[in-house]
Parts: sequence; structure tokens; C-alpha cells
Amino acid sequence: MYTIPELQQLIEKAIPAIEYPPHPKNLYDPITYIMNLGGKRLRPALVLIATDLFSGDVKAAMPAALAIETFHNFTLIHDDIMDNAPLRRGKQTVHEKWGVNNAILSGDVMMVEANKQLAQVNAEVLKDVLNTFNATAQGVCEGQQLDMEFETRDDVSIPEYINMIRLKTAVLVGGAMQLGAIISRANVAETELIFDFGESLGIAFQLQDDILDVYGDPDKFGKQVGGDIISNKKTFLLLNLQQAATAEDQEILKKQLSNTDLNSKISAITALYEKYKIRELATREMTAYLDKAFDALDRISVPDSRKAQLIQLSKELMNREN
Amino acid sequence: MYTIPELQQLIEKAIPAIEYPPHPKNLYDPITYIMNLGGKRLRPALVLIATDLFSGDVKAAMPAALAIETFHNFTLIHDDIMDNAPLRRGKQTVHEKWGVNNAILSGDVMMVEANKQLAQVNAEVLKDVLNTFNATAQGVCEGQQLDMEFETRDDVSIPEYINMIRLKTAVLVGGAMQLGAIISRANVAETELIFDFGESLGIAFQLQDDILDVYGDPDKFGKQVGGDIISNKKTFLLLNLQQAATAEDQEILKKQLSNTDLNSKISAITALYEKYKIRELATREMTAYLDKAFDALDRISVPDSRKAQLIQLSKELMNREN
Repeated sequence: MYTIPELQQLIEKAIPAIEYPPHPKNLYDPITYIMNLGGKRLRPALVLIATDLFSGDVKAAMPAALAIETFHNFTLIHDDIMDNAPLRRGKQTVHEKWGVNNAILSGDVMMVEANKQLAQVNAEVLKDVLNTFNATAQGVCEGQQLDMEFETRDDVSIPEYINMIRLKTAVLVGGAMQLGAIISRANVAETELIFDFGESLGIAFQLQDDILDVYGDPDKFGKQVGGDIISNKKTFLLLNLQQAATAEDQEILKKQLSNTDLNSKISAITALYEKYKIRELATREMTAYLDKAFDALDRISVPDSRKAQLIQLSKELMNREN
Repeated sequence: MYTIPELQQLIEKAIPAIEYPPHPKNLYDPITYIMNLGGKRLRPALVLIATDLFSGDVKAAMPAALAIETFHNFTLIHDDIMDNAPLRRGKQTVHEKWGVNNAILSGDVMMVEANKQLAQVNAEVLKDVLNTFNATAQGVCEGQQLDMEFETRDDVSIPEYINMIRLKTAVLVGGAMQLGAIISRANVAETELIFDFGESLGIAFQLQDDILDVYGDPDKFGKQVGGDIISNKKTFLLLNLQQAATAEDQEILKKQLSNTDLNSKISAITALYEKYKIRELATREMTAYLDKAFDALDRISVPDSRKAQLIQLSKELMNREN
């Protein structure tokens, strides 16, 4: 069995080695650019971790891992256009650097590149791999659509929010692990359990992201602390605050949402979070999803020793600072 | 053997029967909208025509035909964003109707829908089908990139232009037919020949499009006659005129390219086309590609009787009025 750092290193070596056609340069340069901006490489690593969990051939799973990372980065390019985001991982976004039209098209061709990588998996599992990948990709698009629609809606419920992050973030985590299981020829029940594990882990991960946005250490977070507050993002925290607050505090919150003094906005809304113990609420919800993930993992009939690293990684992800 | 109208009818019936998820409505409505705007359905029909040419099972090829049509319509949504086009087939474009962000995302999920359809083909040919489809999709993206880049370049050569239309238009025609051949279990040499046929036919088709833009019958063309002239589109006609014209006529042309009186611009540039017999030149080029297509078809070892309809269709496409 590989250690997780070993698997991560396999990914780190494989990504810069992917070859794209040299021409048209402006079509392919953005792909090399975004694929090499860094990031946690969590999703492709999870493909390999799941493969290894079921004692499969990690090298045979590499095309699927690269397909997942390529697809993920494609969604980042298009999401950044939609969000009008200037920066990604501290660097210019693709549409800022190459223009929107170019960014649309480089994203499109990345989707093709992801499919090309995917088509390299063993023919015996190809159909299952495609079905899982396509369902995953579809979920991610649906999640992004809901996320956009929520921006202009005032009646987003908490279950709707959880469903949105499930689709936008968690399905890809679950799908990545399911691909690894399929490539290892795990049985259907086990591929479903590992999907459930990944999906719940992904929801917990995103809830942790919502918490970190408010409570992260500015020196370690990597993004602007309070960014979600500034943009009035309907996070798990804000939706719960809106639900819990008294009429009086609702009014205060409403005024703060249009406060242009951003530091004062961040402190005022954070104070409301404190008052209603929203951080504790979000942490409980996150822990509940983590427990759900571990329940699914528990039901997978693989020796505990093979699961230990994954459990360790999951716990670390929930205690991360960025 | 089916007649071509029979195959077209199979397509016409299959397209409205494709089911997309009901939610999120704004993600999937644009797909239903653009897929049902009509059009010649030439590309999916060619998948089935090629299948039938090689005596394959036309119904088994339907998922590939629908994948090709879905992919084609996805590219139309994204191309219309990039071209800032208000109308498609006389109706509002998707980004006009739903907004740019929504159009980007509906396009993305259409690519997934195309891949889902493709994954339904027989497992035995799946890998070949994917490889052909992905190579085709990649070519189309490269062609669109070149097309965009040509807008701001002043040194586009005629071979570069032919290569651009090859990638943007012809590769999809060739790829569609190759998919049909693969699904019919034609041998590699024959799948390559039918690709060559389609590719050359596609180039001829696009050259005819360039000609029709200037010489089409306004009552039948469906688009504005002279549209390419108005937008200074570097078509086969314009590039050849620029190459053939005397220094004096180059000057006249240059002035006309910035003429804001559009009717006078169209007549002046059309007069230059007449003077240098550019229509004849373009028609000769188109005929040369049609001949090239027929040469490839000729080398396919299938009885002539099976080829007759395809030859007839190709000739009709070259004599079309829209």
C-alpha cells in the first residue's frame, strides 16, 4: 500500500508531464497555466487513494485521476468567468490574462482533454468509468447553476444550500473515489459506499470552507478572510443566522449587508455569528457529515489498516487552516 | 438500405425525444431550445448514412448521431457568445435569452450530455468511438480558436484559411461519418477513407457557404446576403481578392472595408469579386474538394449502388441555396 504523500507525489509528477498540442498556442497555454497553478490536488489524489484502498493498480487509475483534475480545473476557468473573479490562487485568472472568449474555449477543450484521458482506462471498466464521470460532471454543472441562481434569490433554504454544495463540490469528491473503486474492480455496493463516503466528506469540507472564510487565520487562509461576508454570499453560516436571528437582529443584519465600510461589516456580522453561536452550529453540521462519511467507510469490507490513512486525511481536512 | 429522407426522419423523431433532467430548469431549457431550433441535421444524418453505407445497424448508431448533434449545438451556443451574435436560425441566441453565464454553463452541460449519449454505443466499439469523437471535438475547438485569431490578423494565408475551416467545420463532418463506419465495424482503412470523404466534403461545403454569402438568393439564403462582407470576414473570397488585386484595387478594397454605407460596401466589394473572377475561383476550389471527396468514396469497397444516394446528397449540398 502507498502512503498518501507517495500518491500525491505521483500526481505532482504526472501533471506537468501531460502534453498538450503546441498549436494554437493561445488555446493550450491557458490549460498548462491553470493546471500548474498548484492547489491541493485533493481530487486526483482521492482517485488513487480509493484505488489503493481496494488494492487496485494505482498506475492504471492515473488517467482517471488526471481526467478528474483536468475537469476540475476546467470548471475553475468557467466559474471564474461567471464570477468575474480577477484572481485564482493569487494569480490572474485565465479570462483576465487571455480574455473571456479565449477562456471559454480553452475551458471547452479542457473538457475534451479530460475525456481523452478518461478514454485511456482499461476497456473492461471503461463504460462504468464514463458513466460515473459523466454523472459527476453533470452534478457539478447543476451545482454551479444553483449557486448562480442563489445569488439573486432571497428564499434559499438550508436543505437547498446543502444540496447545492453537494452538487457543486461533494459529488466530484465522491465521483473521484468511485472511479478509483471501479478501476480496482470493487463490487457495486462498495463503489456506492465509497461514493457516499466522498460525498459526505465533500459536504463537510465545504462547510469547513464556510467556517474558515470567517474564522480562518488571515496569515494561513490564502484567501481574504471575510470574503463571503463582503460579497453577501449565502453560506451555511449566513442562512442559519437569517433563520435564527430575532426581528431586531434581522434588521441589523439587513443594514449590514449593504454596509460599504467592509471592515465594520465583517465585524458586525461576525458579532452576530457569535451571538447566535453560528460557528458551533456549522461545526456540528460539519461533524455530522464527517461521521456520515466514516459510517460509509466503516461498512466497506476492507481491513481497517487499509482505511487508517484515509481516516487520518479526512480528520486533517476538517482541521485545516486553508 | 434506408433512403436518406428515412434516416433524416429517424433523427427528426429522436431529437425531440431526448430527455434532459427537469431541474435546474434554466440549465436544461436552453438545451431543449437550441436542439429544437431546427437546422439541416446534416451531421447526425451523416453518422447514420455512413453506418448504412457499411451495412451496419442504424439504430445502434443513433446514440453517436445524437452525440454529434448535441456537441454541434453546444458549439453553436458558445460560438454565439464569442461572436456576440443576437440571432441563431432567426431566433434569439441562448445568451441573449438566458444571459451569458447561463449560456456558458448550459453549453458545458451539453458537452456532458453528448458524452452520455456516446457512452451508450456498443462496448466493443466504445473506445474507438470515444477516440474519434474526442479528436473531432478537439479539432472543432482548435478551428474556432483560429477563426477568432484570424479576426485580428492581417496576414492570414489561404492555406491557413483552408486549415481553419477544415478544423472548424470539416473535421466534424468527417468525424461523424467515421463514427458511423466504426459502429458498422468497417476496417481501419475504410474508416479513414470515409473520414477523408467527409472532411473534403465539409471543406467544399464551407467554401459553398462563403460563395452563398455573396451570391445567395436573399429570399432563400436564410441569413443576410453580404453578411461576411459587412463584417469584413476573411473568407476564401476576400483572401483571394486581396491576393489577386492590383495595388490600385487594394486601395479601393481597403477603403471599402471601412465603408459605413453597407449597401454601397456590398456592391463595391462584389464588383471587385466580379472583376477578379473570384466566384469562379472559389467554385473551382470547391469542386476540387468535392472531387477529392468522391475519390475517397470511390476507394471504399462497397457496391456503387450503396454509394449512389451519398453522391446525390453531396451534389445537392453543393448546389444548395441556403
